[in-house]
Amino acid sequence: MNKKSNKALVLLSGGLDSSVTLSICKKEGYLIHAISFDYGQKHKIELEYAKWQAKFFNCSSYKVFKIDFYGGSALTDDFKIPENRKVNLIPDSIPITYVPSRNIVFLAFASGYAEANDIDNIFIGVNAVDYSGYPDCRPEFIKGFEKLINISTKIGIEGKKIKIKTPLINLSKGEIISLGNRNGVEFSKTLSCYNPKFKKSCGLCDSCLLRKKGFEEASLIDPNEDN
Amino acid sequence: MNKKSNKALVLLSGGLDSSVTLSICKKEGYLIHAISFDYGQKHKIELEYAKWQAKFFNCSSYKVFKIDFYGGSALTDDFKIPENRKVNLIPDSIPITYVPSRNIVFLAFASGYAEANDIDNIFIGVNAVDYSGYPDCRPEFIKGFEKLINISTKIGIEGKKIKIKTPLINLSKGEIISLGNRNGVEFSKTLSCYNPKFKKSCGLCDSCLLRKKGFEEASLIDPNEDN
Repeated sequence: MNKKSNKALVLLSGGLDSSVTLSICKKEGYLIHAISFDYGQKHKIELEYAKWQAKFFNCSSYKVFKIDFYGGSALTDDFKIPENRKVNLIPDSIPITYVPSRNIVFLAFASGYAEANDIDNIFIGVNAVDYSGYPDCRPEFIKGFEKLINISTKIGIEGKKIKIKTPLINLSKGEIISLGNRNGVEFSKTLSCYNPKFKKSCGLCDSCLLRKKGFEEASLIDPNEDN
Repeated sequence: MNKKSNKALVLLSGGLDSSVTLSICKKEGYLIHAISFDYGQKHKIELEYAKWQAKFFNCSSYKVFKIDFYGGSALTDDFKIPENRKVNLIPDSIPITYVPSRNIVFLAFASGYAEANDIDNIFIGVNAVDYSGYPDCRPEFIKGFEKLINISTKIGIEGKKIKIKTPLINLSKGEIISLGNRNGVEFSKTLSCYNPKFKKSCGLCDSCLLRKKGFEEASLIDPNEDN
């Protein structure tokens, strides 16, 4: 299906999942506007990778929103990143790498940006299978948010509905990596690690362990492994 | 009821409604953290008034979040502000002063800030009686948002629920002004006007007309009238 006349907004973090999401959106033929957030994350290289991916997949525009943030997370503050946890299980509590309300803030911005630019599709690479247990990655949050913006925005009420698309939500990490590989994603330009001391991978945080499991499942070699 | 042990977050714009909301929250005995947003609004004096009100009502903290915004509104871009409309009616279309997804973005930030600071009450001065017809001021939006954050945040799932309080939602502008007057609100330090060419009041935009109607209904003189 060719959707050249359709515009999509892609939330791009510079991580593996959002890069694969971008590749899917591109393959489906959308004209893509990509956005990222500089919210005080310690791993600034994420934003360089996001910009790289936006260029690689020929996005029509790319914008970084700089926003004051409020802390409260190991990804923005000086908390210790947990290591060597069992990540192949749905966690029984929300880890300290959870950033309070992050996806609500990001999707709220995406909604406003989409509305201001007459874009009715928002792609976000959330996943609820092999994930860190963040509550704002789950299908009920995404569905609730989509419903909410369509009763509270001008575009939702008077115009076309905004659709929030989550092509990765039910895939395993292995399936995400296989799909990204088929779509030509350059994995060396994605960052998953939570620990800002490492440029590529600490190999111990939840996110590195999930990535490692995913590459094993996909029978592929992670270019970030040797650093 | 004394709620000294309870913390509240108040969204403060520097306008009349949020100042009255702050006065109500203060009267109810909360320890108050106030926040404002510098989102590129043309009327910067709003933020000076917000700071003034936060000090006047002895807030425990006051913070301005500076956020890149995306335009698409007469309040941030170079659109002409509509004048002399019939404001005593629920509008039949959403006016161009509507800022795309503004209250979703503001409440999303408030939710994150509340979560990071262990605050479970968020006060917002939205009103769905004498208002400009913005869809993100209506009760169904507020209820939907409250429900959403309580399924998608750590504080909502593992801790206390976040409550979004809208003490003005069903009041007329006259009732809001009377209440603010009883609570000692200094109306000269509030700004309602949408037109940045005027320091106090253009007397013609929707917001000035609603304010004028409110002061008449409350049988009070608006200190902003002479300028």
